[in-house]
Amino acid sequence: MAKSPEQEHPVKTYGWAARDTSGHLSPFNFSRRATGEEDVRFKILYCGICHSDLHSIKNEWGISIYPMVPGHEIVGEVTELGSKVKKVKVGDKVGVGCMVGACHNCESCENDLENYCPKVILTYNATYYDGTMTHGGYSDSMVANERYVVRIPDGMPLDTAAPLLCAGITVYSPLKYFGLGEPGKHIGIVGLGGLGHVAVKFAKALGCKVTVISTSPSKKAEALEHLGADSFLVSRDQEELQAAMGTFDGIIDTVSAVHPIMPLLGLLKSHGKLIMVGAPNKPLELPAFSLIVGRKTMAGSGIGGMKETQEMIDFAAKHNIEADIEVISVDYVNKAVERLEKGDVRYRFVIDIGNTLAATKP
Amino acid sequence: MAKSPEQEHPVKTYGWAARDTSGHLSPFNFSRRATGEEDVRFKILYCGICHSDLHSIKNEWGISIYPMVPGHEIVGEVTELGSKVKKVKVGDKVGVGCMVGACHNCESCENDLENYCPKVILTYNATYYDGTMTHGGYSDSMVANERYVVRIPDGMPLDTAAPLLCAGITVYSPLKYFGLGEPGKHIGIVGLGGLGHVAVKFAKALGCKVTVISTSPSKKAEALEHLGADSFLVSRDQEELQAAMGTFDGIIDTVSAVHPIMPLLGLLKSHGKLIMVGAPNKPLELPAFSLIVGRKTMAGSGIGGMKETQEMIDFAAKHNIEADIEVISVDYVNKAVERLEKGDVRYRFVIDIGNTLAATKP
Repeated sequence: MAKSPEQEHPVKTYGWAARDTSGHLSPFNFSRRATGEEDVRFKILYCGICHSDLHSIKNEWGISIYPMVPGHEIVGEVTELGSKVKKVKVGDKVGVGCMVGACHNCESCENDLENYCPKVILTYNATYYDGTMTHGGYSDSMVANERYVVRIPDGMPLDTAAPLLCAGITVYSPLKYFGLGEPGKHIGIVGLGGLGHVAVKFAKALGCKVTVISTSPSKKAEALEHLGADSFLVSRDQEELQAAMGTFDGIIDTVSAVHPIMPLLGLLKSHGKLIMVGAPNKPLELPAFSLIVGRKTMAGSGIGGMKETQEMIDFAAKHNIEADIEVISVDYVNKAVERLEKGDVRYRFVIDIGNTLAATKP
Repeated sequence: MAKSPEQEHPVKTYGWAARDTSGHLSPFNFSRRATGEEDVRFKILYCGICHSDLHSIKNEWGISIYPMVPGHEIVGEVTELGSKVKKVKVGDKVGVGCMVGACHNCESCENDLENYCPKVILTYNATYYDGTMTHGGYSDSMVANERYVVRIPDGMPLDTAAPLLCAGITVYSPLKYFGLGEPGKHIGIVGLGGLGHVAVKFAKALGCKVTVISTSPSKKAEALEHLGADSFLVSRDQEELQAAMGTFDGIIDTVSAVHPIMPLLGLLKSHGKLIMVGAPNKPLELPAFSLIVGRKTMAGSGIGGMKETQEMIDFAAKHNIEADIEVISVDYVNKAVERLEKGDVRYRFVIDIGNTLAATKP
């Protein structure tokens, strides 16, 4: 018989877990493995609340296994190292993002693209190599193979860095891979949420001319004055849309609701690229003709490999890129999930695990 | 008052034209301009019947202007040159494809991509610089600016070369641009018609492993034995489909009927590319998730620039690539259109203009 989450591993761990499709999170005692040769153990200090946490705790994708400790935007401080670990030392600040394992044999893994490995092991709600369930960062400590551990550069604020481990890499990777994040390129960012607001910052730091494309005129001041976008386009305004047709080298579309694609393809120059990083749960309508006239590309991109995630964090540190966050205590997490569901956050909740988790222990 | 087609230019020309949306073609006297400084005049020998001719003569795209002389897969022999022409000499074999003009100032034109110029002038049913209508290759002679004239290499059969000027470049260009036409790449060709059958030949000559993907098991022997494909996949066979998932570097989709895209995206490896060259007249259903998992690309491509068209013809000559054709006389053209509509041709009708047009003169 399989052991209980509290007994299957030697190291007692405490976190908050969802127990069923209500998604309600509550105190949870479980356990983590001992520090293996290639493992890094760390005390968790902050963990971001990603929109996918919300889908997962409520089983909206139909693949949830309970109890589940969510969280994949995790930063902390190293407390113990396996004998073969070279990447970090005790006391270093580190992060773990969306994944903690992969096959390490396939073409994707060999090209540092563990995120596209068919056997990628996600940070929570996944089965680890040893057959036990992975659990995420809404907890006091973590242990991960060093390949999946990112060094947080000295002096980088930890709370605003946490969301970059998912939201940051999700937008940085396509900007680089598709040749969009280059000086002089005109890049559109569709949707101004957790992903979109950091996309603006990365694209600006990479030297792009950045236009935020949004259905809400109310976000204009925020986009231009606070986030530093160069211009703002109301996608429902036919005149603005017409005037901007054929002027974008690329568009990063972060919207995960079903929305019209044709106007976005029209905004692209010939040979322009529309990159989807938000995944609407219903198919989009794609007129093939809009791709053929102008040899346009529509592509998807999902997070990024570990090598690129480190590159992204180093780049963010160098350019002072921080996610805009609202720091909360653990006991606010259910309320935060409720607010996130309504889009009521600018732009990411980050749980102050280090200072507030222990006090919630029953 | 505008002059009649017969009087607007000095050079009497004879061809077959559609007069109305019936699409019925019949003898037509019109005229072409005198040979300008940069012009090449040639006697037409062969002209292919492209599927788009069919749409155009019946006004299925709603943009047809009658009378219309169709045909944009044109080859012939040079009879007269403008004083500045350097590309060819009298007696050379030449071809004209889908376009005869563009702006020559935009980014696309400057990069030898006249096909993506917003002001591209198509070979027929378009307004030329001088305000007159362009007319295509179902006629005895042609005059075109040398930029839009392709040299047909010595010894290349002219009848089988004609369809390459549209069908050939349409599949060659994306194979090159998207990095698919390379030794060892596994390429799928969807649809075995005018475009698909030459796509198989080009992809093979470029060193690819080629799989024909078709709904019709009946085309298997033809694909493998006659066209030289390496394998054949029946897209309606779930078992075959499952076994081939994740094995393609790229797919060229030549089908212009609405069809499911998700299975094709599933056939791609991570980072694979699905290129649409057929344009269904209704939007396709695109699940964004299928692009994100595996960073896949879906793109369009439309013919190719003149520089690349010349490269394609030279490549075809070198590798003995010929379209599979059925040569017809001009007076069979209405019957051929009828058969084309039913898909009853392997794989392209080519009109023997040189030997059969004059005899139809009333």
